Amino acid sequence: MVKVGVVGGTGYTGVELLRLLAFHPQVEVAAITSRAEAGVKVAEHFPSLRGRYDIAFTDPASAPLAQCDCVFFATPNGVAMSQARALLEAGGRIVDFSADFRLKDRSVWEKWYKVSHASPELLDEAVYGLPEINRERIRGARLVANPGCYATAVQLALLPLVETDHVDHRHFIADAKSGVSGAGRKSEVDLLFAEASDNFKAYAVAGHRHHPEILESLRSLEGASGRKLGLTFVPHLVPMVRGILATVYARITKETDFQALYERRYAGEPFVDVLPQHSQPETRWVRGTNQCRIALHRPMDGDTLVVLAVEDNLVKGAAGQAVQNMNLMFGFAESEGLEQIAVVP
Amino acid sequence: MVKVGVVGGTGYTGVELLRLLAFHPQVEVAAITSRAEAGVKVAEHFPSLRGRYDIAFTDPASAPLAQCDCVFFATPNGVAMSQARALLEAGGRIVDFSADFRLKDRSVWEKWYKVSHASPELLDEAVYGLPEINRERIRGARLVANPGCYATAVQLALLPLVETDHVDHRHFIADAKSGVSGAGRKSEVDLLFAEASDNFKAYAVAGHRHHPEILESLRSLEGASGRKLGLTFVPHLVPMVRGILATVYARITKETDFQALYERRYAGEPFVDVLPQHSQPETRWVRGTNQCRIALHRPMDGDTLVVLAVEDNLVKGAAGQAVQNMNLMFGFAESEGLEQIAVVP
Amino acid sequence: MVKVGVVGGTGYTGVELLRLLAFHPQVEVAAITSRAEAGVKVAEHFPSLRGRYDIAFTDPASAPLAQCDCVFFATPNGVAMSQARALLEAGGRIVDFSADFRLKDRSVWEKWYKVSHASPELLDEAVYGLPEINRERIRGARLVANPGCYATAVQLALLPLVETDHVDHRHFIADAKSGVSGAGRKSEVDLLFAEASDNFKAYAVAGHRHHPEILESLRSLEGASGRKLGLTFVPHLVPMVRGILATVYARITKETDFQALYERRYAGEPFVDVLPQHSQPETRWVRGTNQCRIALHRPMDGDTLVVLAVEDNLVKGAAGQAVQNMNLMFGFAESEGLEQIAVVP
Amino acid sequence: MVKVGVVGGTGYTGVELLRLLAFHPQVEVAAITSRAEAGVKVAEHFPSLRGRYDIAFTDPASAPLAQCDCVFFATPNGVAMSQARALLEAGGRIVDFSADFRLKDRSVWEKWYKVSHASPELLDEAVYGLPEINRERIRGARLVANPGCYATAVQLALLPLVETDHVDHRHFIADAKSGVSGAGRKSEVDLLFAEASDNFKAYAVAGHRHHPEILESLRSLEGASGRKLGLTFVPHLVPMVRGILATVYARITKETDFQALYERRYAGEPFVDVLPQHSQPETRWVRGTNQCRIALHRPMDGDTLVVLAVEDNLVKGAAGQAVQNMNLMFGFAESEGLEQIAVVP
Repeated sequence: MVKVGVVGGTGYTGVELLRLLAFHPQVEVAAITSRAEAGVKVAEHFPSLRGRYDIAFTDPASAPLAQCDCVFFATPNGVAMSQARALLEAGGRIVDFSADFRLKDRSVWEKWYKVSHASPELLDEAVYGLPEINRERIRGARLVANPGCYATAVQLALLPLVETDHVDHRHFIADAKSGVSGAGRKSEVDLLFAEASDNFKAYAVAGHRHHPEILESLRSLEGASGRKLGLTFVPHLVPMVRGILATVYARITKETDFQALYERRYAGEPFVDVLPQHSQPETRWVRGTNQCRIALHRPMDGDTLVVLAVEDNLVKGAAGQAVQNMNLMFGFAESEGLEQIAVVP
Repeated sequence: MVKVGVVGGTGYTGVELLRLLAFHPQVEVAAITSRAEAGVKVAEHFPSLRGRYDIAFTDPASAPLAQCDCVFFATPNGVAMSQARALLEAGGRIVDFSADFRLKDRSVWEKWYKVSHASPELLDEAVYGLPEINRERIRGARLVANPGCYATAVQLALLPLVETDHVDHRHFIADAKSGVSGAGRKSEVDLLFAEASDNFKAYAVAGHRHHPEILESLRSLEGASGRKLGLTFVPHLVPMVRGILATVYARITKETDFQALYERRYAGEPFVDVLPQHSQPETRWVRGTNQCRIALHRPMDGDTLVVLAVEDNLVKGAAGQAVQNMNLMFGFAESEGLEQIAVVP
Repeated sequence: MVKVGVVGGTGYTGVELLRLLAFHPQVEVAAITSRAEAGVKVAEHFPSLRGRYDIAFTDPASAPLAQCDCVFFATPNGVAMSQARALLEAGGRIVDFSADFRLKDRSVWEKWYKVSHASPELLDEAVYGLPEINRERIRGARLVANPGCYATAVQLALLPLVETDHVDHRHFIADAKSGVSGAGRKSEVDLLFAEASDNFKAYAVAGHRHHPEILESLRSLEGASGRKLGLTFVPHLVPMVRGILATVYARITKETDFQALYERRYAGEPFVDVLPQHSQPETRWVRGTNQCRIALHRPMDGDTLVVLAVEDNLVKGAAGQAVQNMNLMFGFAESEGLEQIAVVP
Repeated sequence: MVKVGVVGGTGYTGVELLRLLAFHPQVEVAAITSRAEAGVKVAEHFPSLRGRYDIAFTDPASAPLAQCDCVFFATPNGVAMSQARALLEAGGRIVDFSADFRLKDRSVWEKWYKVSHASPELLDEAVYGLPEINRERIRGARLVANPGCYATAVQLALLPLVETDHVDHRHFIADAKSGVSGAGRKSEVDLLFAEASDNFKAYAVAGHRHHPEILESLRSLEGASGRKLGLTFVPHLVPMVRGILATVYARITKETDFQALYERRYAGEPFVDVLPQHSQPETRWVRGTNQCRIALHRPMDGDTLVVLAVEDNLVKGAAGQAVQNMNLMFGFAESEGLEQIAVVP
């Protein structure tokens, strides 16, 4: 049994992680921290967990995190980077949901996150936790930076194209749409029901923090071909709770059988499902699951390839991928605890 | 392993049943029928089931239902009553989601459902499948009539009151609210997104078919006290996919500790959760699960007791309760395959 | 032209008031205040008003409210009661959206609102602004307390019953359901899209602030019959933006033609529409309008009368009723500026 | 007063047209046809119109359409093309909401709509009713083909780019998102609340019927530069009732001040509102109004221009634009009856 600690268990990725861990046969949740809710039973805060979790939130200061084998940081940016070193030195391993360790380039990170990085010396060691790229390195990692939700969907949509040479790499377009839970459980006016419901908009059009994350990760795959990859990324807010659909556009420069390319690339991947040609995936097909489902189109038989990728932003885009990473780090079956079927309708 | 057949697998209760059965270790799904979709892979029709179900829909005429140990009818009213006898004679058992066998009184049934009953001789044998009332009879049953979704929530809210003598039995009020999936996967204008979204209304105020079902079942519990129970039942349509909240009002006539009464009545029930006093249950707390969660209130300390009960209309209100009934009929643990945690948010 | 000031123009009732006033031929909006947004163009804050309002928010301290003929307080509780006296002395008239002047009984007010009342001497003068009860007194009023949104719907549903003697007055039940905008534009976790969407719950079951308001107002109508009226009031949160449906239950004690009773009572009322018998009103039928639509039912021909009343909580439940009150106070046609047709779908 | 007939008044564009016409001072609605609802009061079918329309639906066979000055066809494709000739010969004018007269090229039309055109001789006379392109020709027209909802938003987003030479014309991308009402009031499973709510998907990715409409219209503007315009158009279904957001991507080839270009192009347009730079328009900003609001972005200061355009698919995308066209055809002020302010929230 792996002893698990969860730092910051009161948000959406926290409760989703607890839901998933409840079914993981190899895991014992030893501590769930929250400063604001310290002493409150977790199942009182999240009544959906009644009967499954008997423990209360612990104040982070007194939580036995150093005794945990694996600590998940389901916290805002800035928390993990200040606590990681001590936990690693105590022998633990870390999966960080935040952006603290997602970029290798410290200056880019500091430009986008507008603070000094508290543990720059760990940036090199941290492994970017997208198993479809970094599976082997994750297995040996002490510190895994769990990717952003948009970043996961967009990269999985682009990966087979970026690794080959059939489309224009300099002008990818990712028009991404996310449910509101992606913004977290923050009391901001923009996220109110009366603002977001029966409404649709683009946001962060000038630049979203997942943009440099996608760029750095994908450019590292282009290898000798040089850092040339270009991407226009526009996120949109959908009046739904969960789910991301990324609609990705690429200009074809050299013909190939793209369907076969994707099927080959993702053969054997437990959580990437290449759908039959002409499928039009819906976000609810993956709701509550760790699946990313992908379909390819070529509208009007033109020279633009359209890739549609759906995921649940809280599962494959956060808590599920974190469990997948833990499974790799601790040598469990990669799908352990992640066999849910989507709740439809 | 119990060999299971599903008649009518293309609706909402059908796909939900398939989701639950996928995790049931004692069950093998041998046939799923659909006239319209015969030959189509189930996972093509419901892509959420990709990787879990390899079989195709079978035409009901040729499906090997007679070889099944247990047949679920996830069909509209009128189908099960015409096929039940043959299946029972072949040695199978039946859980019927429809209303065909829910009432003992044939004349009441025919008045509400406006057709002649095709198997009136089975009405007596059929067991009304609310385990919280009929657990022992369900264990021995060949034919179980799975209760209606509203009927389940309202009865669980009322049961401890009906079985005792602390409130006015003649004037219960059940103001019930349901998500739209309760109406099934029918292409009716009223159920369109553009009709039901951002909107709220009562419907079937003059009389809803679950009303006689609730009355007959509850009156049978009043025993010697005579058939005096009266109920005003008004259903409402909520712009959400799943979930029922029943708000039940009862006039207190003799004081008691109602919280204790409910906790006692439901102690040991695996799927009825009496919440701490003053709780305000939300439908999402049970979304995707077989739980019914109940809370008691006494507004302004007056003489009106308010009981709030939430369930997922497709699980405890349909497919989950059907599996619970099957578990009882076949001697499995009552919770087998029904351990899901609600997907929140 | 009436010179109008709007105190607190950044919330939902504020923007709705501005929408309505834009079409009022007798009104000129001279000042809209907001401390937080002072100096910002109103149409920048609410782009829906682009091209209609050229002015900016003014800091309340420097706003020319004393020069206004009519000041609307679209503010939280506590603001109007501290500013009303000065404005009245300057010769203005006031319509207050908040609860500050809704109760005559100061001690009840202070119990529910948990602060000392700042202008108790104005409580007697203030007129409760439900035109269907107080039309003549509103015409002469300097200070009108605009009713709460629930309070409006519930009272209009009950009025004909309270004024006559055909039902049990001691045990009314009002099961009310409101869209989320009723809670205002407050950044509270409970009101987030990811909390309120695809979800349903009751709230404030122990006691809601509109309860004493309804009681005091309706009891004043019972006259010689004494203060006996009793009401159980349970509000619920519907995942929609706007709209209230109140489902009211009354026990019939003396037969009458209730449909005729209601039609008689509301004949000539410009904003109460008694629907044909057996109608099932939907909140969208009144979305964006000042109408309250009411239907009567008698389920299963029993002794319980069910009254269904729908309104738009931001219009007849707030800004529209405020304009209606202003129209009465200033001698305009009662419907001036309030002729909108519901946006359906 | 213009005598107006509405053919097919029971759908969403029909009821929206009736809402708008109710406030048009120059219009008298003489007939509203519906085969299915003949004899039923319009206000009974659409209770939102109670008190505004006293007439009943007429059977199309007996409706006095030939006596109308202006007939709106709010019908499915195929109706207007079989009735237009007779009405024109009777001296009436026509605004057709359907696609019957939108394309000049009959063979393209027949390929996409899969029937023979019933009045090919009228294709040349019909004027494509996008006032921002064809204002003068609409003024003199007898037969106006009201544009599709997507087609309106996408063209208004692209127009200033298509008319000039600053971006690559061969590779426009329009990623469009629409509320569900855009599909009409059809009882199709895909449009059910339980299918479309809390869900997101692309559809018609292989090719949507508005694609040839956009292409033909925009190519006609390119003039001497030749028919080179290329467009990838992917529509998506948003879980909201009304609204379209088109996110359009264009590759910049020659620098210019794009904000100024758009402001110049649309100066004086009553229903196109170019927002300040960096605005992120929301569909609710135009809900219920005839406005199209447009904003420009250049993410990360790259060479891709992003144009965001919002409209209400039922107003500027259908009924409102139809009234705008009628205003032009009959010499009324272009904004007559179209001054609504968006209902926010």
